[in-house]
Amino acid sequence: MSPSKPQAIGATPPGETPLLLRALAGEPVPRPPVWMMRQAGRFLPEYREIRSKVSFLDVCHNADLACEVTLQPLRRFGFDAGIIFSDILLPLEAMGRKLEFGKGMGPRFPDPVRTASDIDSLKPIDPVRDMPAVLRAIQITREASGVPILGFAGAPWTLACYLVEGQGSKNWIEPKRMMMNDPASFQRLMDKLADAVGDHLQAQVEAGADAVQLFDTWAGALSPEDFRRWALPAAQRALSRVKGAPRLYFTRDTAAFLPWLKDIGADAYGVDWRTDIGRAREVLGGAMPVQGNLDPIALYGPAHDIRARVHQIIKRAGPLGHVFNLGHGITPQTPISGVEAAVEAVRSWQWT
Amino acid sequence: MSPSKPQAIGATPPGETPLLLRALAGEPVPRPPVWMMRQAGRFLPEYREIRSKVSFLDVCHNADLACEVTLQPLRRFGFDAGIIFSDILLPLEAMGRKLEFGKGMGPRFPDPVRTASDIDSLKPIDPVRDMPAVLRAIQITREASGVPILGFAGAPWTLACYLVEGQGSKNWIEPKRMMMNDPASFQRLMDKLADAVGDHLQAQVEAGADAVQLFDTWAGALSPEDFRRWALPAAQRALSRVKGAPRLYFTRDTAAFLPWLKDIGADAYGVDWRTDIGRAREVLGGAMPVQGNLDPIALYGPAHDIRARVHQIIKRAGPLGHVFNLGHGITPQTPISGVEAAVEAVRSWQWT
Repeated sequence: MSPSKPQAIGATPPGETPLLLRALAGEPVPRPPVWMMRQAGRFLPEYREIRSKVSFLDVCHNADLACEVTLQPLRRFGFDAGIIFSDILLPLEAMGRKLEFGKGMGPRFPDPVRTASDIDSLKPIDPVRDMPAVLRAIQITREASGVPILGFAGAPWTLACYLVEGQGSKNWIEPKRMMMNDPASFQRLMDKLADAVGDHLQAQVEAGADAVQLFDTWAGALSPEDFRRWALPAAQRALSRVKGAPRLYFTRDTAAFLPWLKDIGADAYGVDWRTDIGRAREVLGGAMPVQGNLDPIALYGPAHDIRARVHQIIKRAGPLGHVFNLGHGITPQTPISGVEAAVEAVRSWQWT
Repeated sequence: MSPSKPQAIGATPPGETPLLLRALAGEPVPRPPVWMMRQAGRFLPEYREIRSKVSFLDVCHNADLACEVTLQPLRRFGFDAGIIFSDILLPLEAMGRKLEFGKGMGPRFPDPVRTASDIDSLKPIDPVRDMPAVLRAIQITREASGVPILGFAGAPWTLACYLVEGQGSKNWIEPKRMMMNDPASFQRLMDKLADAVGDHLQAQVEAGADAVQLFDTWAGALSPEDFRRWALPAAQRALSRVKGAPRLYFTRDTAAFLPWLKDIGADAYGVDWRTDIGRAREVLGGAMPVQGNLDPIALYGPAHDIRARVHQIIKRAGPLGHVFNLGHGITPQTPISGVEAAVEAVRSWQWT
């Protein structure tokens, strides 16, 4: 399973700046670049083939396998960017908390962080020493792919959710309980996470990542006040440690938080499918690049419907500063044909 | 377990209009009325006591038990309103689909609605004939309680989610698939559901419900376009069949949909905790009553924090047309003391 060059469908002609980077710089593009969150994953038979032999965490910790899995959707669909195969929770493993992915279950921390001394015990990370696989995976994938490769990390609030709850949750009772009952300790946790995440992103940039994305998947579990007090400054602190590549901030269930997002200081914002992308651009300011925002479940629809939805989003987003993506990750049962239809709809668009 | 009169803490002095109805009419009130979604339920030991002997559906189908369970939180906390104990899915059972609540699992329709002929097979309901327990429960609870009793139903989109998926879901792939692949059939389903729901609500008003609430819990799974095309007109159609009592529309994850909510034609709107309630009032128009919107998980915090959050919401909502509530239902592990602190914080408020 040594990585091979992808079909060059999405590759950038020599000497040209890749579409993704032009869009993120607000420069004119003939059509928006397109990639999809979780484009490497279970909906692909070639990914399931690898995963039938190797566990999820073992793929993450093996640079060659992570590279191969990152390249798979690039070969098949010719996306304009890849995102390195990894998991937002790996830095927490590096900080000293055991992380498990049970069969058919989500992630679990058998020893969740619940007390001030649990927080003290979290080790600062040195990404080069502690997380070499993802850095090496970025290096070799970038050479092999011909398109920009994104690095990523989970935002501090979202990481705190898993770390304190110990597993996925609808309600995130434990992190909110700590936030309300012991705000001083919770602040220390958020600071530690922000610094670790920022350093992890910066190491990915230094390893060659063309852009990085901070996933704040659970920011939408917060009230506006709690978002502004906790998630926002922590994400800002993390991103302030990252220089040398465009930094995207993705969140969801947060259409009401748009007026404050700019304070995070990212270079572009990814929005979910509940958000009107035209309105997102208005609120963020016309020059701020946006990414999104097709409903991932729209990929289960007929090709003509997918095409209409994709073109509607492109029109609403406008010609400058739009990276086409889903509003959240591809789901495991997504039909390949739906992804093909969406990619084809983006490729066929022509800003005149 | 015969219903007994609640402690009259929340009861209205004879001759006065209850706080809830004054707030819903936009009339001056000394403080907002307070009730909480899922105030009757698993977080109460007296409820768990009953449920240790009787299944959830059997409580719903027994007017005396439904009355008793509705009265429990009124006795304990002195809420300003009760909501009749029932389930949004009961009309679907009356329409002919078997409904199950497994131990520790959510609701399941073992035969989900997936085809045009499945939709044809759904029977129109006559609420008086098909759902007598809830109507009788409203009658006897109202007499026994001393405070207004709300009836309720699930909105057509939210009911379609469960009926087509067959169970709860994060992604609602099956209802969206039907919506995209066979919009004509899906429209017939939504029309049938809207008429059933509207008639069910109207029957509850005729049985004595002082107000009714339409729960569109999953409207926030839709894009703005799909919300406007599907969920909104169906909710509007349902509410248009209801006369004689204030009609509330509750939804969540829909802060971005506020500009269109008024088209539903409800008399008041319930908003989730992600929404700034001051902004909700601005967008809905100052005279439109709103309900909400404390984060249910805030009830796990210390009393002083709960009090500050409650007072912040009351201030932001303003003196006229605000019904205090949570932004979603009480969770099963919620501490009694948290609910007490929130109720006390509302009661201690004084608009001068």
